Amino acid sequence: MEAIYRLKRILRTGWLVRGIPRSSVESVAEHSFGAAMLAWEICHRLAERGIDVDPYKTVVMALIHDLPEALTLDLDAEASRVFGDAKREAEEKAAKRVFDGKLLDIWREFERRESQEAKAAKLADTLDMALQALEYSRVGFEACREFLDSAERDARELGLEYLLVFKEILREWGAERR
Amino acid sequence: MEAIYRLKRILRTGWLVRGIPRSSVESVAEHSFGAAMLAWEICHRLAERGIDVDPYKTVVMALIHDLPEALTLDLDAEASRVFGDAKREAEEKAAKRVFDGKLLDIWREFERRESQEAKAAKLADTLDMALQALEYSRVGFEACREFLDSAERDARELGLEYLLVFKEILREWGAERR
Amino acid sequence: MEAIYRLKRILRTGWLVRGIPRSSVESVAEHSFGAAMLAWEICHRLAERGIDVDPYKTVVMALIHDLPEALTLDLDAEASRVFGDAKREAEEKAAKRVFDGKLLDIWREFERRESQEAKAAKLADTLDMALQALEYSRVGFEACREFLDSAERDARELGLEYLLVFKEILREWGAERR
Amino acid sequence: MEAIYRLKRILRTGWLVRGIPRSSVESVAEHSFGAAMLAWEICHRLAERGIDVDPYKTVVMALIHDLPEALTLDLDAEASRVFGDAKREAEEKAAKRVFDGKLLDIWREFERRESQEAKAAKLADTLDMALQALEYSRVGFEACREFLDSAERDARELGLEYLLVFKEILREWGAERR
Amino acid sequence: MEAIYRLKRILRTGWLVRGIPRSSVESVAEHSFGAAMLAWEICHRLAERGIDVDPYKTVVMALIHDLPEALTLDLDAEASRVFGDAKREAEEKAAKRVFDGKLLDIWREFERRESQEAKAAKLADTLDMALQALEYSRVGFEACREFLDSAERDARELGLEYLLVFKEILREWGAERR
Amino acid sequence: MEAIYRLKRILRTGWLVRGIPRSSVESVAEHSFGAAMLAWEICHRLAERGIDVDPYKTVVMALIHDLPEALTLDLDAEASRVFGDAKREAEEKAAKRVFDGKLLDIWREFERRESQEAKAAKLADTLDMALQALEYSRVGFEACREFLDSAERDARELGLEYLLVFKEILREWGAERR
Repeated sequence: MEAIYRLKRILRTGWLVRGIPRSSVESVAEHSFGAAMLAWEICHRLAERGIDVDPYKTVVMALIHDLPEALTLDLDAEASRVFGDAKREAEEKAAKRVFDGKLLDIWREFERRESQEAKAAKLADTLDMALQALEYSRVGFEACREFLDSAERDARELGLEYLLVFKEILREWGAERR
Repeated sequence: MEAIYRLKRILRTGWLVRGIPRSSVESVAEHSFGAAMLAWEICHRLAERGIDVDPYKTVVMALIHDLPEALTLDLDAEASRVFGDAKREAEEKAAKRVFDGKLLDIWREFERRESQEAKAAKLADTLDMALQALEYSRVGFEACREFLDSAERDARELGLEYLLVFKEILREWGAERR
Repeated sequence: MEAIYRLKRILRTGWLVRGIPRSSVESVAEHSFGAAMLAWEICHRLAERGIDVDPYKTVVMALIHDLPEALTLDLDAEASRVFGDAKREAEEKAAKRVFDGKLLDIWREFERRESQEAKAAKLADTLDMALQALEYSRVGFEACREFLDSAERDARELGLEYLLVFKEILREWGAERR
Repeated sequence: MEAIYRLKRILRTGWLVRGIPRSSVESVAEHSFGAAMLAWEICHRLAERGIDVDPYKTVVMALIHDLPEALTLDLDAEASRVFGDAKREAEEKAAKRVFDGKLLDIWREFERRESQEAKAAKLADTLDMALQALEYSRVGFEACREFLDSAERDARELGLEYLLVFKEILREWGAERR
Repeated sequence: MEAIYRLKRILRTGWLVRGIPRSSVESVAEHSFGAAMLAWEICHRLAERGIDVDPYKTVVMALIHDLPEALTLDLDAEASRVFGDAKREAEEKAAKRVFDGKLLDIWREFERRESQEAKAAKLADTLDMALQALEYSRVGFEACREFLDSAERDARELGLEYLLVFKEILREWGAERR
Repeated sequence: MEAIYRLKRILRTGWLVRGIPRSSVESVAEHSFGAAMLAWEICHRLAERGIDVDPYKTVVMALIHDLPEALTLDLDAEASRVFGDAKREAEEKAAKRVFDGKLLDIWREFERRESQEAKAAKLADTLDMALQALEYSRVGFEACREFLDSAERDARELGLEYLLVFKEILREWGAERR
């Protein structure tokens, strides 16, 4: 449980090093909340496209997907490069410490990226980053728009239906907010 | 979905008006993350005490319980007093706008406080406030300890088993962190 | 008096939810200071246009116009919509608690918007929002410019001379600052 | 008018260098709001003690008393020592630039500390610092209590009735808030 | 040594009054770190151009060049104007209090701007301001670009080789970061 | 050079996860400034005890000792544990990217902890953490005092004279500040 309160304080490094003001940088907890909420929405849109996915399990998966960062911290792209494979090993070690049995299974399922739930939760993770980048750029932090390209690449890797849901939500967002 | 990003920005008023530095005041999103994570733990402890409760549904319930605050904002005790019954009505109106059908049902079930899931999610809400108050007081913000009493009262109202789980977790927390 | 110190902490919700960094969001106290200072200037410009208005009383009126927000908090446009008429009632209830006799009279005069002092104080309230929006947009927070239109509408409602003073000051500001 | 918006950003140096978190340090604008509000209250308490003082003028005086700090910044005790007499001269120069005729007269009256209004406004300035120090110490920033002694010294210099009002308000504050 | 910790808290006023969010405004300590790091780089580039300069001494000089601001605070252009010559005198007084013998000599050498080390350290001071302005404008704070012109003027005053190094680094920076 | 500006933004994780408000958490740049300044003082105190150490080189060493954290980020004790030996390897890889030839030599000398300069720079690193902890606890963040014990252990490992300088400075600090 201590991990919960560390995640309320650990900042998303990608925003921080790009110069987003500290007091506007979201915590890993806030990102996890966003991802979990979007997971629900994504599941319903996937269902409409004929993909059967358990929304409850996907929400839990998205909620906990970054919990090991309570111990590893949130490494940005630069940091991930210098740590290399060690990052993965550290996450595995951290996961064993922060999760009890059932949640550890769910986290590993997420990491394997095979089940529909794992893919939907990953899309939720990616989509929250993209929408947050749009929110930042909307208020004036233009530097964040570069995240949109990498988000689309991540969505594409999950498969066509996932990419379509990603694009659909982004399009609605843009229409609604501008 | 816009509600998600408003909740990342809306601050928990109770901490703010007590003088917790703005940059340390948790957002409603962070609180919701904390409550959802604790909901899982609480369900397992209730199960050990023979209370059958669906952890997945409880997590979703705790995650969304404050979503209407995207429109009503987070009224502290003082503000709740001057708004009186209007607060409840505004929440109901806001819920209709931020939720689609299924989540609206889950939110209303939470508000009725009858099912075990609703009680467990409420305990998660209360417990996150109590643990956050302890975290604040641990770093030096002593004024937050007063929240512990009201948290215990709220837990007591849920029933004996709920109160016991509340006290058990607080005891472990205290032992671990000091 | 406790209300004074709550207002130093309560943030202007409109800026906050638009994504202005917390540490840059002005408090209601800062807005009240700005409105009170502008009230003096406005009274002198109205006098030049032949409108007789007591600058001292107008300053006091502008200074206290948001004091009930110490209890009601600062509801933004979205929140005002879900609370509807209840907002007005809550403000009235709050005003009775935070004001002694004389200030309560002055606040009610402000709310009725009939006297020249009430109109001038309202213009000060509106103008401070507009100039603050310009200050935010000047540093890079473009999203704030949308407030200028609603400010002009509010100024127009007060009458022609008020609108002219509003436009005059905005024009000077723009010329001076860019 | 530009001075108004500089004062919303200029921080009270005394709190900042003592380590109060930046996001909790009040701006000079917030202090000016506090002093102006307290000025009204002080005038009514002085009237009860038989001292005749114009509350409207005193409010304006307290509101503007730090406006020259828009140009001189807020020098703390250490900085005031190294600048010595130059501080006074810089304030006079700044006052000429930020004030039009009438407000310059009111500011100079404040600085001379002879009229009852000037003394009442000075007490408001001092009292706001003292109450803010209490607010900070209440949340856990104990280092601020040292300001209370210097505040009492300043109140004493204004005369017996002023000191009694100062002590009376501090006593009520303590009783109400603890 | 107390001066070190005051400089970690004292903010660079130029950024603050322009509206950079408090939590993004660099402290004088951060600027001094930047200047000291750049001093090393500058010395190596000057050496390549045949100018002999001790990099170790220049680093120390750049590191301490703003230490007197622990007592005088960081006066921006507006404040410097109202204080006039008094600023220089206050700095000299402050320098005597914060430095022991050897560092006082190094600081005075810096202030005379005659030795190559003094010029290189001044260039480091100027260059850090310019690069910080670019960093701020990159994330969206456009108002900071105006600092680039005054930085170039300062670099030009140091002599041709210094100006060339300044322009060279800015060009590389622009190419690398955009 | 980009590393410089990343270090102005990367926060010292130890303070952050303990709950120090974000806007009060020092950056790695601020810590590096503190360590570099203390390095000078430490060298002079070691000289008085008959230990010959080059203060200029030690200042540069302390200034750059954390520069690889621009890529590895600042891992706190928990994170260092889960990364294990990988942390050291990542730092070595990062050092090769952020340093040119001469600074890389100086950084490796620092890491070997054999020369007097390396030990003095390490003491400066440790001492800055200890004094910062005292500064935090002085304003009310009591949780930071636990860092003092680990700081003393680190100082002890450097040798008796180093420990004595450490204790001497802490003693003076305590006497001066309380």
